[in-house]
Amino acid sequence: MAVYRLDVAYDGTGFRGYAKQPGQRTVQDELDGAIGKVLGFEVDTSVAGRTDAGVHARAQVVSFVHDGAVDVGRLSRSLNGLVGPEISVKSIVVESDDFNARFSAAWRRYRYLINPLLAADPLTRHMAWHVGRPLDLEAMTSVADTYVGSHDFTSFCRTIEGRTNVRRVEESFMREQNEYLEYWIKANAFCHQMVRSLVGFLYDVGRGYTDGSTAGQVIAGRDRSSVATVAPPHGLTLWEVGYP
Amino acid sequence: MAVYRLDVAYDGTGFRGYAKQPGQRTVQDELDGAIGKVLGFEVDTSVAGRTDAGVHARAQVVSFVHDGAVDVGRLSRSLNGLVGPEISVKSIVVESDDFNARFSAAWRRYRYLINPLLAADPLTRHMAWHVGRPLDLEAMTSVADTYVGSHDFTSFCRTIEGRTNVRRVEESFMREQNEYLEYWIKANAFCHQMVRSLVGFLYDVGRGYTDGSTAGQVIAGRDRSSVATVAPPHGLTLWEVGYP
Repeated sequence: MAVYRLDVAYDGTGFRGYAKQPGQRTVQDELDGAIGKVLGFEVDTSVAGRTDAGVHARAQVVSFVHDGAVDVGRLSRSLNGLVGPEISVKSIVVESDDFNARFSAAWRRYRYLINPLLAADPLTRHMAWHVGRPLDLEAMTSVADTYVGSHDFTSFCRTIEGRTNVRRVEESFMREQNEYLEYWIKANAFCHQMVRSLVGFLYDVGRGYTDGSTAGQVIAGRDRSSVATVAPPHGLTLWEVGYP
Repeated sequence: MAVYRLDVAYDGTGFRGYAKQPGQRTVQDELDGAIGKVLGFEVDTSVAGRTDAGVHARAQVVSFVHDGAVDVGRLSRSLNGLVGPEISVKSIVVESDDFNARFSAAWRRYRYLINPLLAADPLTRHMAWHVGRPLDLEAMTSVADTYVGSHDFTSFCRTIEGRTNVRRVEESFMREQNEYLEYWIKANAFCHQMVRSLVGFLYDVGRGYTDGSTAGQVIAGRDRSSVATVAPPHGLTLWEVGYP
């Protein structure tokens, strides 16, 4: 028995998200289907980050268990032939027996890209949120700082009954890059729609609609209805996943 | 009578290049058609850079002459509604009477983007040439230097009978950026397929197929058949056009 780890990138534009969904085109359906086709049996894959429809991945991690021998070089080439160019299998390696892409992950890092320029940019339209107005970077930076630490992020998550929304944010900051704004966040894990809601709040502060000094109260309030804006999915990219 | 200047960006992926072509979908067909629809008459536009099929523009310049009054704000919004999101009209301004997007341009700057990483990147597949191997940046830099100056670029151009291939290259350099390679070139003007052929030669040197020290002789030889490789169009972006 061996555990195989796949490092994968994808353009989320044409997919209804990562996770399998009946009757929908998802990354997992494409990838698992291709693995099954090449290896001749169905696999049950585990994934580090279940990205939403339209969200991209630069470095997603997927794993599966198989008790036969696999030629990883050949599998990699065959998979890329089947799932490229929207999905790219960057590497396949054998991991230790207790490795699981989802449960072994120590942290995830996401980038959210914002185009504040007045004019739309056709070349980044699938990966940047075009807000078309200048934003107050200083006010947003101060809110991004507030996100750091262990918090109950109920105000920023679609809650699943019986599950905690406590997450530990290790890094959270804004930066300007080539006239665009980037928001970077690293946490042990994320609940559903968390990054997009955190960015939505940042945007409302950046455009002067919300007072940034309320960020601490909004987190403490644990009230989903207190955050009005959810940033669109196409600005978001799963950038990196860390393992111990 | 007034001259109108449009600053335009586009994703060249879905177009058969800039210039009008019967039965083909081109940027000019879309743009001129939209202007005609909004203003109610056919316009004859001039353009700074006639980009090839698949080539992008971050800052293309287009102009036309009209003797009626035009509400440029309204025209801009109407055009973006018709040609977006693949084409973006960033601004429209009234220029001096002797302005012509093509003939008034003093220089053009292009960027060519190369992905040397082994694995393909789905997010840049429409705008970077994925060569999938490391390239010798130092050797390429030395060749890029050789391109600078006034030369007859016949070895790098699809020659048009009776026209000169002499161009003045003002800047030409390679740089590494986030694991990608960028080639930047600024010249008074470019002949057909010139940037893609210059990049093709750089690539052959970078991968060790061609000796970079022959670059001077290849230019001097004025022999189109001496340059074997033409880089694919999708890595190329018209970045900027300068006017006096």
